Amino acid sequence: MDTFIEPIGRLINQFSKLPGVGKKTAQRYAYKIIDMSPEEAKQFAESILECKSKVRYCSVCGNFSEEEICDVCKKRDKSVICVVKEPKDVIALEKLREYKGVYHVLHGVISPMDGVGPNDIRIKELLERLSGVTEVIIATNPDVEGDATAMYISKLLKPLDVRVTRLAHGIPIGGEIEYTDEVTLSRAFVERKEI
Amino acid sequence: MDTFIEPIGRLINQFSKLPGVGKKTAQRYAYKIIDMSPEEAKQFAESILECKSKVRYCSVCGNFSEEEICDVCKKRDKSVICVVKEPKDVIALEKLREYKGVYHVLHGVISPMDGVGPNDIRIKELLERLSGVTEVIIATNPDVEGDATAMYISKLLKPLDVRVTRLAHGIPIGGEIEYTDEVTLSRAFVERKEI
Repeated sequence: MDTFIEPIGRLINQFSKLPGVGKKTAQRYAYKIIDMSPEEAKQFAESILECKSKVRYCSVCGNFSEEEICDVCKKRDKSVICVVKEPKDVIALEKLREYKGVYHVLHGVISPMDGVGPNDIRIKELLERLSGVTEVIIATNPDVEGDATAMYISKLLKPLDVRVTRLAHGIPIGGEIEYTDEVTLSRAFVERKEI
Repeated sequence: MDTFIEPIGRLINQFSKLPGVGKKTAQRYAYKIIDMSPEEAKQFAESILECKSKVRYCSVCGNFSEEEICDVCKKRDKSVICVVKEPKDVIALEKLREYKGVYHVLHGVISPMDGVGPNDIRIKELLERLSGVTEVIIATNPDVEGDATAMYISKLLKPLDVRVTRLAHGIPIGGEIEYTDEVTLSRAFVERKEI
């Protein structure tokens, strides 16, 4: 006989599609589903379908939204735009509860190695949003692609008389100089500030 | 605004119910669902429902089955029964592809601390299956509850003229004596064999 009966095998295959989930973990998840009450399992399945059917991208900022235009774009200060790579970056920044402006999700970064050029991410849409904007904060990741994308956008926006800033890089708060990697440390040197 | 819009928040809650999954992992899983095609997400949800509705327990051995009686009980040698705690133990043993007999899943072990007595697990059902059985192999885990359960079943079966055996315990193959825990090592001493 096969090790698993078909419905269990199929569910294990489905769970294996999740990031970082191998066969063994998928198996544990499948057992958990079998142990659930029929009602619980139904809710689980419905949540997946609901999430897939109800969640779309805001037509303005590109973040997850239930409606055509998301709550952030509807209600908040449109003079400052924070540019991020992915919707999950918005969630990380929203947790601070400090930022009062709106977002612009690029859905990617410029990466010639992967064949992603400026036209493959939402840069055109950013340029269309600039009337009345005083500052664009670029919050792409501090890696090669994130840096390149930040530079590209900054060069596009500078002539348009918009202030372009980028999140500061340096030694993390609570970090130790001894254990800080060289790239971060040299960046912290270059970007040192007068006190 | 809330950090997550409702459908995403609900799906994250559902994924958090899986064993060993925290908020952050559940969030990654939810994003993966959003990234899937509608067809893929539908298949995922259907697999959950299918697994829950089609999988039940074999009325003879208690293992997972799609039918009233599972394939193992239908097709294999019924003179040897291997007694295990849970369906997943069956899967581990089946992977060996060596055992040709049938199984009996107890769905638990005797554990007075947790209020689980002999009548709370499928021991009665085991006794009802004994006609024509020549050997019962007990494959409960080598821990206090597993040992107690093995002893209890063995005492019940001995008078019935059934050979009762238990899986051997000792130093794992490839293990090193230096790093073997004391309990295993002392067990290996007690159960030493002539060569």
